[in-house]
Amino acid sequence: MKLWQKDYKLNKEVEKFTVGNDYLLDKNLVKYDVYGSIAHATMLNKIGILTREELNKLKKALIGILKLNESNNFEIKLEDEDVHTAIENYLTKKLGNIGKKIHTARSRNDQVLVDLRLYSKEKILEVEKELVNLLYTIIYFAGKNKNVPMPGYTHTRKAMSSSAGLLFGAYAESLLDDFELLETAYKLTNQNPLGSAAGYGISLNVDRELTTKLLGFEKVQNNVLYVQNSRGKIESIIVFALSKIMEDLAKISNDLIIFNMEELGFFQLPDEFTTGSSMLPHKKNPDVLELIRAKSSIVDSYLFQINGIIKKIPSGYNRDLQLIKEPLMQGFEIALSSINVMSLLIKELKVNKDNCIKACTNEIFAADDVINLVKTGVPLRDAYKQVAKNPENLPKIDAIANIISKKHIGATGNLGLDKLKQKIKSINAGIDSEIKKFNSKIKVLLR
Amino acid sequence: MKLWQKDYKLNKEVEKFTVGNDYLLDKNLVKYDVYGSIAHATMLNKIGILTREELNKLKKALIGILKLNESNNFEIKLEDEDVHTAIENYLTKKLGNIGKKIHTARSRNDQVLVDLRLYSKEKILEVEKELVNLLYTIIYFAGKNKNVPMPGYTHTRKAMSSSAGLLFGAYAESLLDDFELLETAYKLTNQNPLGSAAGYGISLNVDRELTTKLLGFEKVQNNVLYVQNSRGKIESIIVFALSKIMEDLAKISNDLIIFNMEELGFFQLPDEFTTGSSMLPHKKNPDVLELIRAKSSIVDSYLFQINGIIKKIPSGYNRDLQLIKEPLMQGFEIALSSINVMSLLIKELKVNKDNCIKACTNEIFAADDVINLVKTGVPLRDAYKQVAKNPENLPKIDAIANIISKKHIGATGNLGLDKLKQKIKSINAGIDSEIKKFNSKIKVLLR
Amino acid sequence: MKLWQKDYKLNKEVEKFTVGNDYLLDKNLVKYDVYGSIAHATMLNKIGILTREELNKLKKALIGILKLNESNNFEIKLEDEDVHTAIENYLTKKLGNIGKKIHTARSRNDQVLVDLRLYSKEKILEVEKELVNLLYTIIYFAGKNKNVPMPGYTHTRKAMSSSAGLLFGAYAESLLDDFELLETAYKLTNQNPLGSAAGYGISLNVDRELTTKLLGFEKVQNNVLYVQNSRGKIESIIVFALSKIMEDLAKISNDLIIFNMEELGFFQLPDEFTTGSSMLPHKKNPDVLELIRAKSSIVDSYLFQINGIIKKIPSGYNRDLQLIKEPLMQGFEIALSSINVMSLLIKELKVNKDNCIKACTNEIFAADDVINLVKTGVPLRDAYKQVAKNPENLPKIDAIANIISKKHIGATGNLGLDKLKQKIKSINAGIDSEIKKFNSKIKVLLR
Amino acid sequence: MKLWQKDYKLNKEVEKFTVGNDYLLDKNLVKYDVYGSIAHATMLNKIGILTREELNKLKKALIGILKLNESNNFEIKLEDEDVHTAIENYLTKKLGNIGKKIHTARSRNDQVLVDLRLYSKEKILEVEKELVNLLYTIIYFAGKNKNVPMPGYTHTRKAMSSSAGLLFGAYAESLLDDFELLETAYKLTNQNPLGSAAGYGISLNVDRELTTKLLGFEKVQNNVLYVQNSRGKIESIIVFALSKIMEDLAKISNDLIIFNMEELGFFQLPDEFTTGSSMLPHKKNPDVLELIRAKSSIVDSYLFQINGIIKKIPSGYNRDLQLIKEPLMQGFEIALSSINVMSLLIKELKVNKDNCIKACTNEIFAADDVINLVKTGVPLRDAYKQVAKNPENLPKIDAIANIISKKHIGATGNLGLDKLKQKIKSINAGIDSEIKKFNSKIKVLLR
Repeated sequence: MKLWQKDYKLNKEVEKFTVGNDYLLDKNLVKYDVYGSIAHATMLNKIGILTREELNKLKKALIGILKLNESNNFEIKLEDEDVHTAIENYLTKKLGNIGKKIHTARSRNDQVLVDLRLYSKEKILEVEKELVNLLYTIIYFAGKNKNVPMPGYTHTRKAMSSSAGLLFGAYAESLLDDFELLETAYKLTNQNPLGSAAGYGISLNVDRELTTKLLGFEKVQNNVLYVQNSRGKIESIIVFALSKIMEDLAKISNDLIIFNMEELGFFQLPDEFTTGSSMLPHKKNPDVLELIRAKSSIVDSYLFQINGIIKKIPSGYNRDLQLIKEPLMQGFEIALSSINVMSLLIKELKVNKDNCIKACTNEIFAADDVINLVKTGVPLRDAYKQVAKNPENLPKIDAIANIISKKHIGATGNLGLDKLKQKIKSINAGIDSEIKKFNSKIKVLLR
Repeated sequence: MKLWQKDYKLNKEVEKFTVGNDYLLDKNLVKYDVYGSIAHATMLNKIGILTREELNKLKKALIGILKLNESNNFEIKLEDEDVHTAIENYLTKKLGNIGKKIHTARSRNDQVLVDLRLYSKEKILEVEKELVNLLYTIIYFAGKNKNVPMPGYTHTRKAMSSSAGLLFGAYAESLLDDFELLETAYKLTNQNPLGSAAGYGISLNVDRELTTKLLGFEKVQNNVLYVQNSRGKIESIIVFALSKIMEDLAKISNDLIIFNMEELGFFQLPDEFTTGSSMLPHKKNPDVLELIRAKSSIVDSYLFQINGIIKKIPSGYNRDLQLIKEPLMQGFEIALSSINVMSLLIKELKVNKDNCIKACTNEIFAADDVINLVKTGVPLRDAYKQVAKNPENLPKIDAIANIISKKHIGATGNLGLDKLKQKIKSINAGIDSEIKKFNSKIKVLLR
Repeated sequence: MKLWQKDYKLNKEVEKFTVGNDYLLDKNLVKYDVYGSIAHATMLNKIGILTREELNKLKKALIGILKLNESNNFEIKLEDEDVHTAIENYLTKKLGNIGKKIHTARSRNDQVLVDLRLYSKEKILEVEKELVNLLYTIIYFAGKNKNVPMPGYTHTRKAMSSSAGLLFGAYAESLLDDFELLETAYKLTNQNPLGSAAGYGISLNVDRELTTKLLGFEKVQNNVLYVQNSRGKIESIIVFALSKIMEDLAKISNDLIIFNMEELGFFQLPDEFTTGSSMLPHKKNPDVLELIRAKSSIVDSYLFQINGIIKKIPSGYNRDLQLIKEPLMQGFEIALSSINVMSLLIKELKVNKDNCIKACTNEIFAADDVINLVKTGVPLRDAYKQVAKNPENLPKIDAIANIISKKHIGATGNLGLDKLKQKIKSINAGIDSEIKKFNSKIKVLLR
Repeated sequence: MKLWQKDYKLNKEVEKFTVGNDYLLDKNLVKYDVYGSIAHATMLNKIGILTREELNKLKKALIGILKLNESNNFEIKLEDEDVHTAIENYLTKKLGNIGKKIHTARSRNDQVLVDLRLYSKEKILEVEKELVNLLYTIIYFAGKNKNVPMPGYTHTRKAMSSSAGLLFGAYAESLLDDFELLETAYKLTNQNPLGSAAGYGISLNVDRELTTKLLGFEKVQNNVLYVQNSRGKIESIIVFALSKIMEDLAKISNDLIIFNMEELGFFQLPDEFTTGSSMLPHKKNPDVLELIRAKSSIVDSYLFQINGIIKKIPSGYNRDLQLIKEPLMQGFEIALSSINVMSLLIKELKVNKDNCIKACTNEIFAADDVINLVKTGVPLRDAYKQVAKNPENLPKIDAIANIISKKHIGATGNLGLDKLKQKIKSINAGIDSEIKKFNSKIKVLLR
């Protein structure tokens, strides 16, 4: 039975079309809908809509749902439309009139927002934990191979001397910048939408500060209409952050696909991460890396989806918004699995040091040679011309000594990995504290 | 067991990551993989790789798979990776050495392409049939309401007199143009990739003309490398066509959402197509239309996905391409269900004639008034100024007479619906003939 | 002076904001606006709005504008807003009352559409001519190098033997498929919007067949509202075709960037197409190819722009549509210059045959070896395992003989270039005939 | 003369193709290139590459360029390729050997990054100042009209009572959230790339901390390869922030287009912000709003452009990156002019209070009525059904009293505008301080 059920019957095909995957996706939200409902009921008790006894019964029944859900026994049927209805129907069936009261002073519009915000908060933290793990792996790899020289490329052409350490250090710093995006997304997510009802408030003196505190949000999201207007917007900011992480993983993947070509052979992919061909017995293909690369485009498309859906719809709730759940949830799933698989791969990645050194042919030291002339007083442009004119005169260079000798900030001889590790450690502590804070709030809520 | 199975074990998480949804999506391809395999085996027999007896056994087993699949009893397991492996494993288990021969002179690269091409052909035809149905519905509606006047809008402002007939006639012609895109997509899809193997041909004299004929393709797709390079490209052309259809449906939806606002009230949505609110008892919401509008953005994103995936990958097969299956298949599903639901809705749509006429306030005839002055010899620009200066002088106009009186090609009094119906009829005949042709080819193949 | 000038003054900043680049972009449309205006005036004469003398004066003045424009002396000022106003103001200044009559029975809405359709027709034909040129270049290159073997890659890994001929043949066939998209775009563009006025027709018996004939359109675009609704839609179909061409050029570029790496060295870029580094004297960078690759993403974004602009705006003209001019025009410019530069580059491209042959190491013939075993009766799967187990046993193979020996349709020994040339020749004849037809129509119009 | 000029001549068409618009766009960067060059020269002096006298001469000449540029007399020619070359050529012409030394220890790769970072910093601050201005305007409007009731819509259908104050308060809070994105973008932009050279550092002990301090950056961007890899990435983060601002402006525009329809008439657009029709004398069209709506899609496409360009290019500089300048710069220009025009418009916007009140028909108070029953003890669901059954029984409600009575956080009677003003004030102070800091750094630099 739907919450708004009227006398006419909904066409079956139309029902299927409107419900879509919601009844499946909403499995991810049962937990959060229970949390939100307990907080809401607690508040209703405080403002006199529910008696203490009604509250207790509701709370007990809701915690029951939580347990059913943990053992995968709480079902959301197509006819229920969504998790909110499934839960309200359950409560009404179990508690009669009391169940019919829970929806007082709220709408599914603010209810689903609470669910999605809590869900997103936990997922962002989960992504951050996986990222920390990947970062440690990358930095460990960079440190271990900091003195392995390899050509640095510009325009996909050998340019100057570089190192395995510099390359992986670059990956690490890029992923570190992504934390800024995740943090911004987290901050915007961390606002309590509850009490905005259908987007125009309610003629009851609901206590929005109370539910904010109970659910561990940082603050109330103030304007009740903006609460609705921010649906999709905040999701797009989350997915943008995820898409930038995926972009970094795609860059690593694309680089490794090229650097692992037999013609270059700088790195060796672990066997378990390659797959074979149904027709070509000799192949070891970098499928995992290719898939990460492609999945990056898929997460990009989720941003595109959300932006397309919310663009040019009028202020206030519109049904279009329902379809934002899927790109959000799939965005998280893809990001989490990709980060995880990339960590596993880099843990097993090998450097072919000999190939790397062999590839450091003389011309990549030309720029260093120019600088040597400059040090003798030749103006840079003349030195450049002199070196350009006689490329065959370039002296033999020890690649390892060369990369170690570059000591300015951020150069091969001064990667600053310790500072990075320090930064990650502090980020990690921040994540853990946020997780702990949320868990303790929920513990109190369910008490 | 994988086709390329080697000695090392694939990490379970890596396996899950690489297989993805393929083993589920491939259920849609079982039928086509069987068709392709029978055609391939027939050809292998012709060039002497399989004996007549081996061919017969293979064919019988393959037809067995077809039957299992029809009753939903043919399973593709995660460990099988994909439909091709599931089928080959089944054959080898059943037929021993004979099963091991079926993959001669082909690769999963051309095999999956055959499957996807045949699948796409049937799906395009299915979309076209649904579109024909929608077009008849729209044109019937336009004809029935051709003399119902309503304001025509520019800049979301009343501009001139229009009619329900003109509006729905416009929708019909837009959808008719989409057939051009579908036809182009169909033509490019209708090329046989089989025999290209992994993208570099095979050192056997495979008879590509024969499989082309057996499978009902219009021609061989010539260059074996281009066969691989066209993967994703042709899918993007299909999805572009679907996205333009969805764009049209979104335009209809968005228009109807506005024209159905209580403030305008030109159309009345059938009750079964609206849904209610969990908090606001008076609401009848146009959810179906909002969802179609949003789904249009989702299909757009599938084009984006495919383009993103294929961009900048090197010539030849790359694993990235696997991820194109999902946006293609979902694109078809969304387009089919949206067209269907839109047909159902327009069949039940009502025009509120009174509201429409009432909305035809005087100023929308100002342009006609200008023309009346022009007919008396006043230069247009002077007539324009004269009318603009005294808008209150505009005479009362009979809206119905006005729209009927406009008789030039394509105007309210001359919608040309019969020509449209004629065109659709001829398109429909073309579709039916194509369906018949394919079915008879398959009948022969399975004989 | 604006055509709709009223008493209040438009804020200067607002004027700048609304006019945007239109007064610059419209320089591309002067020619077509004159054509459309002459056809329109001729029609107005036929239905009695203009006398023969008025028509003659208007025609003479319009041809005068054409000449001014050819010598770059016809100016469109910011205050004019657009080409239509600039021309009407010019006519009114020169001819007084007669000038004030030209806009009878048309709106800028259908006027700009005529301009854009004629412009697009000529530009599509121009793109097609450039493409024909590029195709001849590519096929010549493929033919010249059809017996140069090189490794064929899958997963960016050496897979089987391929050839320079096969590679460039693949490029040619991909570009040939793009003609289908251009043709569809051309067909939809080739419809006459004139006479639809503001999108709701006109209370005069305008003769739309006449202007269609005069301007060389294939047919009238019927429904006057669909004329407006198709704005942006048809542009998106054009830009989609351009984006697929650019995608092909990007694929060629990306391939050549990799195949031209010193580590592979299969091709040598002409010096004039590489640029140097301000710091690294030895570099020869493939900048042209990198820019084509990037420009492909820019043209993609034009499709995105147009789709974003037209999505969810109501039926009928909306000002949003103005912004579609720029992505359309820039799309054409980028496509034309990129195709042209690619032709120049491939004309000078060299193959390093020695490197190509050297790169054909033994393992790329493994699949051929498997087939050799199959020919002796070993089932494919067993042959596969046998070869996989002892990769070092692979026999020495003559790469040139190998690629020549593969004779099935589309393989290295049977590229089918002659069929392609035949097809291009016929396409080219079609283009030339279309150009000739249009030019002769215009010649008659201006007579 | 190009910095890397070699002996062969570049084809003219190729030159035009590769330089593109750079020589025009770079006009925006002259100022910043001078700043970066002075800082770099100062550093070169400190590490002994330039004498004090050489530094002084360079500085004087560079300040001369600054002045030429201010009076629009510093030209960048197509043959110069870019601003960097134009400046170096100028210096070498003026100072001979000294000019030839300035490029020591830097590459155009890090030079252009410094320019773009400084440019972006100033532009972000400029956008923020405009946004503050818009926010004050919106909040003033919200405050003035906080007691003007209007229907609140969901599903584009009247749902509950809302107010002009609530609507504009929602706009304000959305724009306030955008500051978070701008701040994140600013923070990532505020890193010094100088000293990374071509992306692989330099064999001189460059002092990156010194240039960081001189140019007012918050910190050194550490890893020299990541400096290059972050090109495009940081731009995409900036443009994402701009796109979210534009999305907000598009939402305001789209809402006002609908609410300003004659059928609703809640707001009246100032005459100077509407334009007329060339054919329909009565029209006042909301062109400015339509263009803002469309421009939002254009800025979206810039994000798409940048992401497309950087995706799947290898680590290190690639020429593709050059094309990112244009979407970045145009993104800023569109955002700045759109915010500005929106401020002007809202300053003149009028509310039609009578229409607003009249539109508050009884059914929008149904939810309040349900709550009234709930207060008497009826369970919500039963109250809902009771009200739904007899919609005609809804009592007459005073709309103004109703919206004032809703007092919970964020509701119509408690908009929290003072808190918003407080927040903006504090943001504004932060921006001003950042501007001041940068200006004082530059003052010292030029001393």
